Amino acid sequence: MNLAGLRLAILAPIAWPSPPPGYGPWEQIAFNIAEGMRARGLDVTLFATGNSQFDGRIASVVPVGINEDPALNGDVYGALHVGELFRRAHEFDLIHNNFDWKPLTYALATDAPPLVTTIHGFSSPQILAAYYACAWRSFFCSISDADRDPGLAYLATTYNGIDPAQFTFRPTAGDYLVFLGRFHPEKGAHLAIEIARRAGLRLKIAAIPQDDGYFREEVEPHIDGDRVQFLGAVERDARDELLGNALALVHMTTRPERFGLTMIEAMACGTPVLGANMGSVPEIVVDGATGFLCDGVEIAIARVPQLATLDRATCRAHVERNFSLERMIDRYIDAYALALAQKLPAPPTQEQARWRARDWWDRPMAYTDIPPKPKSLRFNGP
Amino acid sequence: MNLAGLRLAILAPIAWPSPPPGYGPWEQIAFNIAEGMRARGLDVTLFATGNSQFDGRIASVVPVGINEDPALNGDVYGALHVGELFRRAHEFDLIHNNFDWKPLTYALATDAPPLVTTIHGFSSPQILAAYYACAWRSFFCSISDADRDPGLAYLATTYNGIDPAQFTFRPTAGDYLVFLGRFHPEKGAHLAIEIARRAGLRLKIAAIPQDDGYFREEVEPHIDGDRVQFLGAVERDARDELLGNALALVHMTTRPERFGLTMIEAMACGTPVLGANMGSVPEIVVDGATGFLCDGVEIAIARVPQLATLDRATCRAHVERNFSLERMIDRYIDAYALALAQKLPAPPTQEQARWRARDWWDRPMAYTDIPPKPKSLRFNGP
Repeated sequence: MNLAGLRLAILAPIAWPSPPPGYGPWEQIAFNIAEGMRARGLDVTLFATGNSQFDGRIASVVPVGINEDPALNGDVYGALHVGELFRRAHEFDLIHNNFDWKPLTYALATDAPPLVTTIHGFSSPQILAAYYACAWRSFFCSISDADRDPGLAYLATTYNGIDPAQFTFRPTAGDYLVFLGRFHPEKGAHLAIEIARRAGLRLKIAAIPQDDGYFREEVEPHIDGDRVQFLGAVERDARDELLGNALALVHMTTRPERFGLTMIEAMACGTPVLGANMGSVPEIVVDGATGFLCDGVEIAIARVPQLATLDRATCRAHVERNFSLERMIDRYIDAYALALAQKLPAPPTQEQARWRARDWWDRPMAYTDIPPKPKSLRFNGP
Repeated sequence: MNLAGLRLAILAPIAWPSPPPGYGPWEQIAFNIAEGMRARGLDVTLFATGNSQFDGRIASVVPVGINEDPALNGDVYGALHVGELFRRAHEFDLIHNNFDWKPLTYALATDAPPLVTTIHGFSSPQILAAYYACAWRSFFCSISDADRDPGLAYLATTYNGIDPAQFTFRPTAGDYLVFLGRFHPEKGAHLAIEIARRAGLRLKIAAIPQDDGYFREEVEPHIDGDRVQFLGAVERDARDELLGNALALVHMTTRPERFGLTMIEAMACGTPVLGANMGSVPEIVVDGATGFLCDGVEIAIARVPQLATLDRATCRAHVERNFSLERMIDRYIDAYALALAQKLPAPPTQEQARWRARDWWDRPMAYTDIPPKPKSLRFNGP
């Protein structure tokens, strides 16, 4: 689909500049989309903070990120930011909203051009009221099939992508497991520790603090600098090396996640994923090809010896084909085209729900249905 | 000015129904305006909660007040409430916003009809950024001259009004002073106690708690059930009697207030006001006629013997003429007419700033300039 020349407004959040200097996932994705669309020839205006860095056109009402200046009121500048976009809405053919639900209430009041909203996350069940009330005024994209609200119709699932060139492919598997993330029970560092211990492998942990009580009780006692090594937070180069030299990334989350960039980064390095079979994991990891989907700790431990049989080049290729920035832009281009045709798609069929397998193998395959998700938010081992 | 038939949308807040069953000053005023305009023949639609009680047309997106149901998210429903108004904006000739600054950011994005915003209060200096950014999209009314922000142009001062019929005029002055309000240093209960004690008069206090430490230290030790009586919070009938039978209301605030409904209620009962000469007090009390403007406690004490010389009928007439609901509606009708003519008024002249005196006396009078306000927020006696 060629949308060259399309006048596209991309609304980024303003907690941080786009791209953000550090944390700021939504700003980063909005920026990535803006860059990607500009490269495809669209006429892009990025609504973001004034200190954003974008080679295309930036529109700003706030000089810096809300989180960068305590004098700025997020409510006030958020509303002005959105108000300014809709004031200029007639200048665009399409608006891509990456700033949650509030812009939808402005769209209610205007005859703005088609609006595509990526729901990057549901911060609280209460905001569903806004999505439901404004559903007729926007098309929606989810960042995984798992993160869809059953009450909303979606245009597409538009997985986030990475630039594979930013990650070094290492063809030889290492001899340790790695855990990357935050110290929170739902991220499952304690399960990674148990798996490594019982599988007789070393575990390297790179994570940022979140739940300190959990860290003290469930993680810290196991850190010995040898079998369980804690590296703190790791920056880009160290992260690339840490991921690439591992035998596998352990991603045994205890509640369903919307997406999982870490898994994609690991696979880009050639490292397979030992992942909990819930949330978006089955959409990201191809079971038996780029990792294993595990219904519990016992299964994960049983899979460890099989990790060496996985082809690391397959992991890399999976990311290049399905989770690259280019592939993300492809998906958004398709979504934009659907929105411009004012055509909401039919609900996905059972067959469509299996696109992942077909897309990857390029041929029909025997595909085991994804087992039901655990009812409890905590992970129940077998 | 006759605006009969004008299609008017009034936007009320949705913390409470309009009118509110108890507390809810902005909802009460929005309701009063809606009722008053309907009585003048305007075609009124009141945007308020679904459980609001209005004889005219109500438009609602939220069934009850946000503060009445903890499951309702104020951010979400506030945005939907405003979005719905602007979605329907083309159905109206004029929109009167009583819901603070957020609606202005929606007005930015639409070609809505003229918008009049009453600034009922500035909840924080940070919201000024929103008022400044959207100033070209709304006309502003202040609820007193004292409450104007110097950076905004105002259409009019539209004082809140009461229904004088709800208050009993009592021609004979009582022998006690009264304090009505909240226990907070800025309301000055401690100054009322000092004035009553040193003037040799009894003081009756009817107030609700706010600053408990202040109450315990500055007020409670003086309550003896005789010279200083504390009556708790008083309901309508008791309030009418308490105010009407007093010699004067003591309103020695220690920081400028936006308005002061209590003063108007006291005067409606015939009771003059001993008020601090700051904030809106000089706009509400006519010095030497309906009370005294006092630059400190010493002056207030010196004025006590002169209270008996004031004509209680004058107090009542002042309210009927200047602070009745009907007069409030007159002022809003004038403001609406100005807005419809798309004519922002010139800044007030020195002469115009004295309207209060002329309006009341119906003739030029010698009028002492209002002394500068104390620099400190706390009141400094002489």
